[in-house]
Amino acid sequence: MDEVRLIEVKQDIHADNERVAEELRKRLAESRTFLLNLMSSPGAGKTTTILSTIEKLRGSLEIGVIEADIDSMVDAERVASQGVSAIQLRTGGFCHLDATMVSQGLDQLQLAELDVVIIENVGNLVCPAEFDTGAIVKVMILSIPEGDDKPLKYPLMFSLCDALLVNKIDYLASGLSDFDVAKLRERVHRLNPGIEIFEISARSGEGFGEWSDWLRREAKRFLAG
Amino acid sequence: MDEVRLIEVKQDIHADNERVAEELRKRLAESRTFLLNLMSSPGAGKTTTILSTIEKLRGSLEIGVIEADIDSMVDAERVASQGVSAIQLRTGGFCHLDATMVSQGLDQLQLAELDVVIIENVGNLVCPAEFDTGAIVKVMILSIPEGDDKPLKYPLMFSLCDALLVNKIDYLASGLSDFDVAKLRERVHRLNPGIEIFEISARSGEGFGEWSDWLRREAKRFLAG
Repeated sequence: MDEVRLIEVKQDIHADNERVAEELRKRLAESRTFLLNLMSSPGAGKTTTILSTIEKLRGSLEIGVIEADIDSMVDAERVASQGVSAIQLRTGGFCHLDATMVSQGLDQLQLAELDVVIIENVGNLVCPAEFDTGAIVKVMILSIPEGDDKPLKYPLMFSLCDALLVNKIDYLASGLSDFDVAKLRERVHRLNPGIEIFEISARSGEGFGEWSDWLRREAKRFLAG
Repeated sequence: MDEVRLIEVKQDIHADNERVAEELRKRLAESRTFLLNLMSSPGAGKTTTILSTIEKLRGSLEIGVIEADIDSMVDAERVASQGVSAIQLRTGGFCHLDATMVSQGLDQLQLAELDVVIIENVGNLVCPAEFDTGAIVKVMILSIPEGDDKPLKYPLMFSLCDALLVNKIDYLASGLSDFDVAKLRERVHRLNPGIEIFEISARSGEGFGEWSDWLRREAKRFLAG
């Protein structure tokens, strides 16, 4: 198991986040690092999705992970146990990541050896939507048990993401959920006509072909400059 | 269906929230209104739990609801359609409720006719934990699909609540979740030894006897002064 490095991050309230995010994107273009910001509610399946995605892209793209957590290291330890380079950012109560915090995480990774870095943001559908982390693409997960009404209630998050992963799709067959995928797609596309939507199960691997093809294509296009 | 009143609330950044919350509690003691702050992740089942709780306590306690939402009225409309007094607070992007916002909601309810007011806070396990709304008790929901590791990751919320409702307990039998209820109880009690934990299904009504008995007892004790 790789050792997990822990960084305690603090928000720099005097920094202009938009400016820091733009500088970070310049740095990523130079180092040829495709940075992906992954957001969702608590428990929607971010860590399992990251692990299944890395597994699917193994041999094709070298991927590192920045984990954000308020007060624990469980996710980073889980990722590192799969032999993946992982950094844990502990936000000390903070509800989102900003570009300065992400930059501190990137400082600790060997960017020359990585094609892609995935940020696992704090589990929260509200605050992370409001802060540019400097990422090249923004991806969100909505899980079936959360319900198909979430675009009505957290519209900003759905509006600004490049891709939406509808996770725990296997819960549909349990008969416990009345989630309507067609209704969800309609609500999401009304907010964000260009968004890509993939139905997945991070646990079973269902749907990971299409999603990882999209991610590989986006990353390769960026890396080709 | 009762008409839903919509109030656009803004945070008063100059107000001392602790002071406003204390004043609100004095007002609640005078009006004999038991105020309950209900918090959870998005999609954990707050609205369904509120409706099932009101149904269970009908004839015993008169209950009104303050719904918080960033940008929609769907929850308040659903509650009002059951003949319940409901106020919708639209927070305009704001990630939590504070005591000033709750006070504005209470101004719109006929408190003399109500024994209990339930606040449905914004779906978020981080920010709402940091703001005293003036409530007499704080209750949170964790749903089975979110996973049993959440106390490790959002400790403040679990530390300060008086009761925890473990919802969607029927998902345990689906075979899709490896949620360990004993492990959850141990993690929660380590943070908060005095918390009451109830296992429920808001959809089927399972576990609502014990939970509503507790709520009735707490409310009656407060109302008896």
